[in-house]
Amino acid sequence: MDIFYHDCGINLRKIQGENVRRAGLLPTREMVPVFLVLEPMETPDRETMMTELNFKKGGGLLPVIVQDYSSREVLMLAYINKEAWEQTIATGKAHFWSRSRSKLWLKGESSRHYQIIKEILLDCDEDTVIYLVEQQGGAACHKGYRSCFFRRLRGDDFEIKDEPVFDPAEVYKK
Amino acid sequence: MDIFYHDCGINLRKIQGENVRRAGLLPTREMVPVFLVLEPMETPDRETMMTELNFKKGGGLLPVIVQDYSSREVLMLAYINKEAWEQTIATGKAHFWSRSRSKLWLKGESSRHYQIIKEILLDCDEDTVIYLVEQQGGAACHKGYRSCFFRRLRGDDFEIKDEPVFDPAEVYKK
Repeated sequence: MDIFYHDCGINLRKIQGENVRRAGLLPTREMVPVFLVLEPMETPDRETMMTELNFKKGGGLLPVIVQDYSSREVLMLAYINKEAWEQTIATGKAHFWSRSRSKLWLKGESSRHYQIIKEILLDCDEDTVIYLVEQQGGAACHKGYRSCFFRRLRGDDFEIKDEPVFDPAEVYKK
Repeated sequence: MDIFYHDCGINLRKIQGENVRRAGLLPTREMVPVFLVLEPMETPDRETMMTELNFKKGGGLLPVIVQDYSSREVLMLAYINKEAWEQTIATGKAHFWSRSRSKLWLKGESSRHYQIIKEILLDCDEDTVIYLVEQQGGAACHKGYRSCFFRRLRGDDFEIKDEPVFDPAEVYKK
């Protein structure tokens, strides 16, 4: 069903029936200008996409798994708020919310080891995302390892399984 | 240096020097019973291992990334408390804390799609772990997909990129 409505007395706009959820008055076939009570149209725009992420569950924050686009190795886990999400989308570089420093955090802002976004995945509950990235500098961990997950459980203790890629003292010096 | 100390007037115990951090009084070579002020011994036991995980940061919960041991595909993200962690270690099957149901959750308790632990990784901040698992039933997501991350960002919206492996209505029927 096609529906026409009168918009501020200026334009007659045609809306797809599926976008009209409630109609206080249906216009006649002769397109008499009347008001319709409409719910927001579900046009897929930036705003709609963002509301699909459930930031409420984690008190405004949402965990992001960062995974190497080529090797599929998990590099780190960090958190985003809406601002970090928007900055990531706008720049194509991974941004997070630093819980320890309570500020927006461009990954690589000190080390220049930026994470270039190749793909973004969303989970079934809309409360976790994956950034598939190209890790610049070859290492994500501030301790110099390729991945922050450089330890594995062996018996009752964790052992280091990887070799560091860079010297943190060298990379983070001012 | 070997140090001997008198334990409650009953046993004389020998302790490796490296475990003795502070000594109020050092016993003589003749093993005169005195008290030593000792910090907890760093023997790698179950208790020590658990305290390495930082449950405090997330209010008692800690995120777990579940990854397929063979393909390295990220299957899901869930949370553990200490009990879920202990049950995972004790049984070799992934246990979590269900935030929505507020209860211990053996993954697969309804679907029988258990996650068999192959390896466990720990991150640099001790506040995230990875379970590398063999996913029984071929699918981790309650919506029937292999991974919960079955959607990817395309333009301004998310699109489904995978095919379901099972029919949830069939698997979760009572």
